[in-house]
Amino acid sequence: MASRAPSADVVVAGGGVVGLSAAWEAAQRGLSVHLLDPSPGRGAAWVAAGMLAPVTEATFGEESHARMFLAAAARWPDFAARLTRATGMDTGFQACGTIAVGLDASDRAAIDQLLEFQRGLGLDASRLSASECRALVPTLSPAVRGGALMPGDHQVDNRRLILSLIEGCARAGVTLTTERVVSVASDTKGAATGVVTERGDTVAAGTVLLAAGAYTPKIGGVPEGVVPPVRPVKGHAVRLRAPGDGPAFARTVRGLVRGRHCYLVPRADGSVVVGATAEERGYDTTVQAGAVHSLLDDARLLVPTVDEWEYLECAAGLRPGSPDNAPFVGPTSVPRLAVATGHYRNGFLLAPLTAEAIATYLTTGAVPPPLDAYPVDRHLPAARTGSGR
Amino acid sequence: MASRAPSADVVVAGGGVVGLSAAWEAAQRGLSVHLLDPSPGRGAAWVAAGMLAPVTEATFGEESHARMFLAAAARWPDFAARLTRATGMDTGFQACGTIAVGLDASDRAAIDQLLEFQRGLGLDASRLSASECRALVPTLSPAVRGGALMPGDHQVDNRRLILSLIEGCARAGVTLTTERVVSVASDTKGAATGVVTERGDTVAAGTVLLAAGAYTPKIGGVPEGVVPPVRPVKGHAVRLRAPGDGPAFARTVRGLVRGRHCYLVPRADGSVVVGATAEERGYDTTVQAGAVHSLLDDARLLVPTVDEWEYLECAAGLRPGSPDNAPFVGPTSVPRLAVATGHYRNGFLLAPLTAEAIATYLTTGAVPPPLDAYPVDRHLPAARTGSGR
Repeated sequence: MASRAPSADVVVAGGGVVGLSAAWEAAQRGLSVHLLDPSPGRGAAWVAAGMLAPVTEATFGEESHARMFLAAAARWPDFAARLTRATGMDTGFQACGTIAVGLDASDRAAIDQLLEFQRGLGLDASRLSASECRALVPTLSPAVRGGALMPGDHQVDNRRLILSLIEGCARAGVTLTTERVVSVASDTKGAATGVVTERGDTVAAGTVLLAAGAYTPKIGGVPEGVVPPVRPVKGHAVRLRAPGDGPAFARTVRGLVRGRHCYLVPRADGSVVVGATAEERGYDTTVQAGAVHSLLDDARLLVPTVDEWEYLECAAGLRPGSPDNAPFVGPTSVPRLAVATGHYRNGFLLAPLTAEAIATYLTTGAVPPPLDAYPVDRHLPAARTGSGR
Repeated sequence: MASRAPSADVVVAGGGVVGLSAAWEAAQRGLSVHLLDPSPGRGAAWVAAGMLAPVTEATFGEESHARMFLAAAARWPDFAARLTRATGMDTGFQACGTIAVGLDASDRAAIDQLLEFQRGLGLDASRLSASECRALVPTLSPAVRGGALMPGDHQVDNRRLILSLIEGCARAGVTLTTERVVSVASDTKGAATGVVTERGDTVAAGTVLLAAGAYTPKIGGVPEGVVPPVRPVKGHAVRLRAPGDGPAFARTVRGLVRGRHCYLVPRADGSVVVGATAEERGYDTTVQAGAVHSLLDDARLLVPTVDEWEYLECAAGLRPGSPDNAPFVGPTSVPRLAVATGHYRNGFLLAPLTAEAIATYLTTGAVPPPLDAYPVDRHLPAARTGSGR
């Protein structure tokens, strides 16, 4: 059964937003690329909302991530434009801005605190009164007590982007095989030489890139302590459709609803993504009634007309969580084995930056800033001992 | 394009539970039957929960319906057994009984009042304390204040039944055409001679039976004042799946939740149907976020573990509502034109009784008791004048 595919410069295990973006960017630089995924783009990337939110994702204790997020956001307009030029497809990238709103007084106070922190980091965010919030999004509940405007937090239509990336990869000559990678193949010195699929085929390559999101640690053939610790963080998202032709409202709405986070991301076609739960449940993607209920509960408290909107679907995906909520992008301690995973809640935001870093690494041998500040081994025991980090 | 199909004894417009049951029963009596439906069994019948509830459906002001409901329920064991013998398929008919429970003190009081009414009609129902309710259904919320047991209110798996009826019809020689009937064809004297499909084909028959549920009045070619007044009453139902191998619990649970009705019908395979809304919205089957939310809201108040159950789907269908909530079964004022519609919330309960009445009418010319007490013209203006009803 086993056969050997022609060798590529790089083989990518995983066709989510990170794997597809990296494959496309590497192919743009003239590398031959082979990507394997049993169902490209249909994992967490298909469930995601596609928020590109450097400011609203900045959180206490993660100050240093803000620079990385801003660097990533800055790449989006060009990345989307290049992809559209290459494919003729609309990615749904929209520089729409975001408003954060609080439902009750303590939600409002929490947004004020976060606003102070964000402005302290030099991020672009301004306070909004309750009536200013309703002027921007007229269907907001009268209960909303106020909020903040983040004019630089945008969105991309996750599913349009995925379909554009698949088309872009095909046009750029990437070989796409719809099979699961089960292990890394190595030579006698322990260097990676390719990947082995579930059918037993080997795909040989100069470099192996593991980009299988939360499933990355499930890929075999790699010694202990090489693949960084990522864990699945389950997220449910509901998709609704508002009546009428245009988007439900002009900006992404992120709400704090009695201490719970909820967002509504309006697409150009009238659909709205409502998300998201964050659950530690292992490798479980079952859609659960309690999650559907709680997402709808929060959404209708923020925007009461949600009750009249069409219910399209609910899906659940697994974010690749990392210990410090920053990604792992670059080489491992195994020669010719690199990873791009751990993007947690920010896979779409960070995809162009990650793709660029991987393409640069593949062509120069070095991971460029700002991702070089997050070495792949930073949470691995050996690295902690070896480098004193 | 127009062609003429070979003539049948009866042509049935509509393949919901009523049309399919009538077609099957008529074929059992030796009649040649042609049934037309663009998507057999996929309308309201597919959304329904399949409750067979003569007692819990008995309501103040509809005392006379109770006898009809009991007569219908009495036919179910034999109907299901005959259909299984004919097809080898399990219909999911279960003599499981039903418990009604009230969430708060006023819900409990309302159930007590209804119980008194039901017992006054001689129906089989008995009071349950809160702890007796929980002994029967251990996952009930501790908030439940008490209820009642209706040991004769059963269920059938609506989708299994529909698939069994389609198979039964095929085996009994019923011609099934997946096309929409747009009008009734008539001769020069005004008698019905068949139906015309959306493709323009005519299907000729000795008798035309309109059994298109809420869509019955949409069928053309019939003079004003002939088709009885049925209207669409939209119902949403959610389908969930409880963990484990068997049913989520042994009996159907009907709850009164702060004045709102909610039911949970447990299937043998672990799935549970949660329903149902009742909305006057015309011919609209859009699934709406508010309905999904409200059904889940009530279900989890009754059975808190619902939060952990898998969410499978929500669908909406249109019940054929009638002015007095009783069906219209039998001949119209147009020769050779009969109807079977208006079954509102009780299409599955009444299907065997209706099928038997239609088969008897087709072979003898008379509608038998108890459905003869509900003449088709009872809500039509001409009948009111002509017969003094």
